Amino acid sequence: MKFKSEQEFITRIQRLAQRRSDGLVRGIGDDAAVIESSRGLRWCLTTDLLIEGIHFDLRHDSPHSVGHKSLAAGLSDVAAMGATPRFALISIAVPSSRAHTFLPCYYRGFMELADRHQVALMGGDTSRARSQIFIDVIVVGSVRAGREILRSGARAGDHIFVTGALGKAALGLDLLRRGKSPSEGMERLAVASHLYPTPRTGVGVQLCKAHIATSMIDISDGLSTDLNHLCRESAVGARVYETRFPLLGEGLSKRRLRYALTGGEDYELLFTVRSNRVAELREEIGGVPVSDIGRIVPRSKGVRIVRANGTIESLTPAGWDHFR
Amino acid sequence: MKFKSEQEFITRIQRLAQRRSDGLVRGIGDDAAVIESSRGLRWCLTTDLLIEGIHFDLRHDSPHSVGHKSLAAGLSDVAAMGATPRFALISIAVPSSRAHTFLPCYYRGFMELADRHQVALMGGDTSRARSQIFIDVIVVGSVRAGREILRSGARAGDHIFVTGALGKAALGLDLLRRGKSPSEGMERLAVASHLYPTPRTGVGVQLCKAHIATSMIDISDGLSTDLNHLCRESAVGARVYETRFPLLGEGLSKRRLRYALTGGEDYELLFTVRSNRVAELREEIGGVPVSDIGRIVPRSKGVRIVRANGTIESLTPAGWDHFR
Repeated sequence: MKFKSEQEFITRIQRLAQRRSDGLVRGIGDDAAVIESSRGLRWCLTTDLLIEGIHFDLRHDSPHSVGHKSLAAGLSDVAAMGATPRFALISIAVPSSRAHTFLPCYYRGFMELADRHQVALMGGDTSRARSQIFIDVIVVGSVRAGREILRSGARAGDHIFVTGALGKAALGLDLLRRGKSPSEGMERLAVASHLYPTPRTGVGVQLCKAHIATSMIDISDGLSTDLNHLCRESAVGARVYETRFPLLGEGLSKRRLRYALTGGEDYELLFTVRSNRVAELREEIGGVPVSDIGRIVPRSKGVRIVRANGTIESLTPAGWDHFR
Repeated sequence: MKFKSEQEFITRIQRLAQRRSDGLVRGIGDDAAVIESSRGLRWCLTTDLLIEGIHFDLRHDSPHSVGHKSLAAGLSDVAAMGATPRFALISIAVPSSRAHTFLPCYYRGFMELADRHQVALMGGDTSRARSQIFIDVIVVGSVRAGREILRSGARAGDHIFVTGALGKAALGLDLLRRGKSPSEGMERLAVASHLYPTPRTGVGVQLCKAHIATSMIDISDGLSTDLNHLCRESAVGARVYETRFPLLGEGLSKRRLRYALTGGEDYELLFTVRSNRVAELREEIGGVPVSDIGRIVPRSKGVRIVRANGTIESLTPAGWDHFR
């Protein structure tokens, strides 16, 4: 097994893991795995790593916000299936010397978000670590059988929508790293988006009920990476218009555009809708704005971005890659 | 939240997490969490951390054996519920510089054991890490509703059984650490038990089908710790006889007794059986020897060990505690 990137690695594992199995509806390759449940329900399972020095930094993230974020990531994955989050498990390893200061605040942050979403913590594992804190959170959601929204359902002609604003968490992280205290409302919003992101569980469930999204993914690695994931799984291409991107604040600064394309941890939803059903969509779903940023095209046309000046460029995955 | 030990910490989390939830049959406090499934089935979910420098050391563990062990831990937890393992997810973080050497062998070791148990790998997460390899494996098993074997069902008078031999993995680790190449059959078996432990999934399923075990736990932290876990959850005491402990080889050396009581990662099963049904048990279940090591007693009598010379001592949890 040789691999050049994280995606190639995952594809190899996907091939390795192609065992058919009773009760397994969807395995590797989506936001969550799906297994059969009872009375026409299915369970969606997802797992997300949060590692000190990679995904968070206690110089500007508090243990309380790490607790929040470690659950938010899984809630977002479950939302991207159109499912309702129900249960969670936490595996956590902490250096013994920091266990007493970190863990109580971590669990408070976690449980506050869990309670807000009526998610029950049902298990986990604990260990010490040498120097780095390591967290893995598993979230289980439920969805009506056949109503799960996969990455693979987009077809040429579908409109591409995103919720909320893009690039805000990366902007917030940038402000925190530079030690700048946020001066205006937009900056304060960006910092809050980084520390306490809001997973779009309500939007996910409403799209599922309305049976209107043909495919969906959450934007956790940046639009460029996650749109490419969705296009690969659906075997399609896409054309998106940067002038339509929902950014925080006015104007198209280069930096804010870069954050929108490659910044991680926005936890917004990207979904597709058949053109004949677009009129049913409002500008907001449950108070969350949605923006039409482009169209799905045949695979042969590639995944491309139309710049503000009209030039068209290939949109390559430029977000996070752990093995590059 | 203040806590003196890992157990106290888990008890606090257990209290924090006491949300009742539809579909949740058993939460924190057992080998696995249990949720409702379909057609009279339930899913058991468990998660196990394996951390470099804590749970394994690549100076004597191979990446292949780490792959095996990281799944074996979860299979053993599922076996301890009487459930059949079905699916797994892997969350893994590896320093980029070691990804190409570690991951292929790791996944080979994992998938070989998965295939042997017909377990489908259905998802996970990957990340880089700074210096230490972190692994979290989630295993999902299925069990007939109401037939899951909990830690909490033991009653005074029940006999206490263990499968296989105790202390062998710790003996194997000791040999590996001292750089001794195993000279005789027993030593070779001990080293193999450390590198490639055999989870007792067959025994777990057979005990479940026979409906004979009143409680069960897997021995992953040493007999002294895991027997105390079972007694706490069942609100009972226990009396075990060290002369009856199944050790590797002949005689009761001090070192081998200590390994049996406090050595981790044996992945044997400890279960209890009502005295009027003990006669139904054979000396072996599916080729695995089982040994009657003592009796459950009322809680007030404590958890005690009868030494070979007849003295009776309190058996305190002396296995692994990550936060002490």
